[in-house]
Amino acid sequence: MDKTSKEDLIKKASKPAEDAMKLHPFYKGKIEITPKVCIRDFTDFAIWYTPGVAEPCKAIHKNKESVFEYTNKGNAVAIVSDGTRVLGLGDIGPEAAMPVMEGKALLFKYLGGVDAYPICLDTKDPKKLIETCKLLKPTFGGINLEDIAKPKCFFVLDSLRSDKDMDIPVWHDDQQGTATIEVAGTINALKVVGKKLGAATIALVGTGAANIATARILIAAGAKKENIIAIDSKGILNAYRRDLEEDKKNNPFKWDLCISANKEQRSGGIKEALEGVDVCIAASRPGPDTIKKHEVEGMAEDAIVFASANPIPEIWPWVAKEAGARIIGTGRSDFPNQINNSVVFPGVFRGALDVRAKTITDEMCVSAALEIARTAEDKGLSEEYIVPSMSEWEVFPREAVAVGMKAIEQGIARAKYNKHELYEIAESTIKRARDEADLLMRRGIIKMPPE
Amino acid sequence: MDKTSKEDLIKKASKPAEDAMKLHPFYKGKIEITPKVCIRDFTDFAIWYTPGVAEPCKAIHKNKESVFEYTNKGNAVAIVSDGTRVLGLGDIGPEAAMPVMEGKALLFKYLGGVDAYPICLDTKDPKKLIETCKLLKPTFGGINLEDIAKPKCFFVLDSLRSDKDMDIPVWHDDQQGTATIEVAGTINALKVVGKKLGAATIALVGTGAANIATARILIAAGAKKENIIAIDSKGILNAYRRDLEEDKKNNPFKWDLCISANKEQRSGGIKEALEGVDVCIAASRPGPDTIKKHEVEGMAEDAIVFASANPIPEIWPWVAKEAGARIIGTGRSDFPNQINNSVVFPGVFRGALDVRAKTITDEMCVSAALEIARTAEDKGLSEEYIVPSMSEWEVFPREAVAVGMKAIEQGIARAKYNKHELYEIAESTIKRARDEADLLMRRGIIKMPPE
Repeated sequence: MDKTSKEDLIKKASKPAEDAMKLHPFYKGKIEITPKVCIRDFTDFAIWYTPGVAEPCKAIHKNKESVFEYTNKGNAVAIVSDGTRVLGLGDIGPEAAMPVMEGKALLFKYLGGVDAYPICLDTKDPKKLIETCKLLKPTFGGINLEDIAKPKCFFVLDSLRSDKDMDIPVWHDDQQGTATIEVAGTINALKVVGKKLGAATIALVGTGAANIATARILIAAGAKKENIIAIDSKGILNAYRRDLEEDKKNNPFKWDLCISANKEQRSGGIKEALEGVDVCIAASRPGPDTIKKHEVEGMAEDAIVFASANPIPEIWPWVAKEAGARIIGTGRSDFPNQINNSVVFPGVFRGALDVRAKTITDEMCVSAALEIARTAEDKGLSEEYIVPSMSEWEVFPREAVAVGMKAIEQGIARAKYNKHELYEIAESTIKRARDEADLLMRRGIIKMPPE
Repeated sequence: MDKTSKEDLIKKASKPAEDAMKLHPFYKGKIEITPKVCIRDFTDFAIWYTPGVAEPCKAIHKNKESVFEYTNKGNAVAIVSDGTRVLGLGDIGPEAAMPVMEGKALLFKYLGGVDAYPICLDTKDPKKLIETCKLLKPTFGGINLEDIAKPKCFFVLDSLRSDKDMDIPVWHDDQQGTATIEVAGTINALKVVGKKLGAATIALVGTGAANIATARILIAAGAKKENIIAIDSKGILNAYRRDLEEDKKNNPFKWDLCISANKEQRSGGIKEALEGVDVCIAASRPGPDTIKKHEVEGMAEDAIVFASANPIPEIWPWVAKEAGARIIGTGRSDFPNQINNSVVFPGVFRGALDVRAKTITDEMCVSAALEIARTAEDKGLSEEYIVPSMSEWEVFPREAVAVGMKAIEQGIARAKYNKHELYEIAESTIKRARDEADLLMRRGIIKMPPE
């Protein structure tokens, strides 16, 4: 792993930023609406609009489920945000969140064949977020929550997931999406170093949306809760953390990690948290000195370090390497082992939509993580290759099948297929989306930017 | 005008219905999301998503108005419905309303180049409809309300239009859209028969969303309120209508027509309403005997009759003709003079969006109506040609210019252009949308239906 200076990396990161400022005004938006039906001539509008349209309307009125047959609901996802925690930028508001949500919609379509609609809402009130998602239910086959501040993001997601009337999947990508790729990476990294998830000790540095969910999905995947040690900016989570006990109503997830995880009831800082553990998953503050060399030096043999902060990881990969870590992942595409949730959500939603799932369970996340891990394994794992990148696009239909089959097994799917059928559907849907984008570019409907 | 039996016409209307039931499940949705930006390779995602996207986010955070420069907000419209009054089908609910909203989105794009997102909401509460539209404001450049029951549709529209914080256009197509095309038709029909709008007496049969708005736009266009006679299912609206006086809090619009219109304070039924008047605009119950032959016989010389009910007009065109009417319009495309609001909304929104208008005023509706009228006039008016059809697509950029220039004149536009520039923008945007649809069909991304 080459050493690179902080300045070099920041400079490298500034190229996309410069391009973004040129190209965003050039295109004025990243996605658009196009017809999905034939318009042979104007008389076809009598089929798609009045008078013909009345018939499918009546059919849906008679049988509400048939909305999946007659409309795009079954391929439509709302990307809902209030703009209170956008990237690393914080609470910049719903308008300023729009470029991110449009970018996400672009990834949803190009990688997963999913029609995602950015919806940035003019409120910070979690109750209104919840209510609006419920109001949107007839239109969408799923909801992707995005860039919502914690702890309200936990409350919003959990309220919607536990709502009996909410019979479409609600997903918070900063929780489940990130957790799924962290778990996939952990599974494969452990394979490379020859350790078992069920026996591994895991330190979670940072207890934001990502790591709280990562803890849950790790456990669902077979990690022992007692072997997890979480740490926030005030120190290791343990039963003596009065501040978290007092706040447990607002953030019960953190308090649970205080009392049910960390079996040794360690206390202290990052050094103490990492002491002798097998895996460190950091999702905290941009580095490079959030985690220090000597802290990694204290980890177990063949240590695994995921330093996910952007744009600068909590510790430079080469510093972690020098400190003895054997496998290092970051959030950046310019280092090996990018831990990137863009590998997750397009495939998970593809699968959930294809079987018309009513929710996305933690078990479906685990299935996705395992399939992502297998996709990389099939190509040959190494210290520098533990997860596929989003350009290895077979990962998406594979995930879709894993997620869809698990939903069918769990009895939460409205449409039933076998593995082969599901793969066909997912693959052809994604291929069509890519072909469409390529055609639009090739034929100049999407113009190339000026040099 | 050929006589056709009711059975023939119903049969004719059943063909689109049959096709609709075959083709809706074939396509499963009428619109989809596609990329609007180049994806030259996977590194471009660093521009459209992290890390590059952070820059436009920061720019919008600094200057909220720049959301129009960096995102698709300026070309995006939400089609919001609660499904309480869908077509002639009544309160069939938000899921069953989806096929109509998707059809509308298709027309928005193909005719106006506008990216419209169907949003059917799971509520019937007007306050929640209003609140949700306000929450959606950051995402959209305009809101098109659709198929909402009266009288709440008046309350929803008026609340949103009069809300100081609501700085994007809110439009209820069943009110303003229909009114605009009725007024355009009236203007040209009066030209053909050589009468003046300011002197014409006009009977409005039916006082639903359409005709209440038609009254307002007619007056804004120069008709005299005192010369308007409205009639509902209980009789002519006049100051003696105790039922409407008692209900005036819920429906002030109707009560206003009771006391400020109908200067003769006529009373009675359709016969009395039509007696000696120049124009009859019916938007009431499907016919063919809602309006009777002898009732039209009582109208003034060179009478104009618009019978807009679907699928069967309030009176057969040939019956109205036999009764002495000189110009007859209906809602159907298989008779001359289709009075069709699809000629209106794509152009009006095109214009409003292009100048980033903060609202759509009644004066903008009048400008649109006048320009629609001129478009037909330029081709040569006749008794059987008073308004363009939606296939005469020059009407849309022309409307867009008229609406945009009026918005600039009224000081409610955020972007300023001259007429020529506005025409260029509107025409090229619409042309691109059509080219795109044609390309997708020609190259099989949109498959042709099986025979």
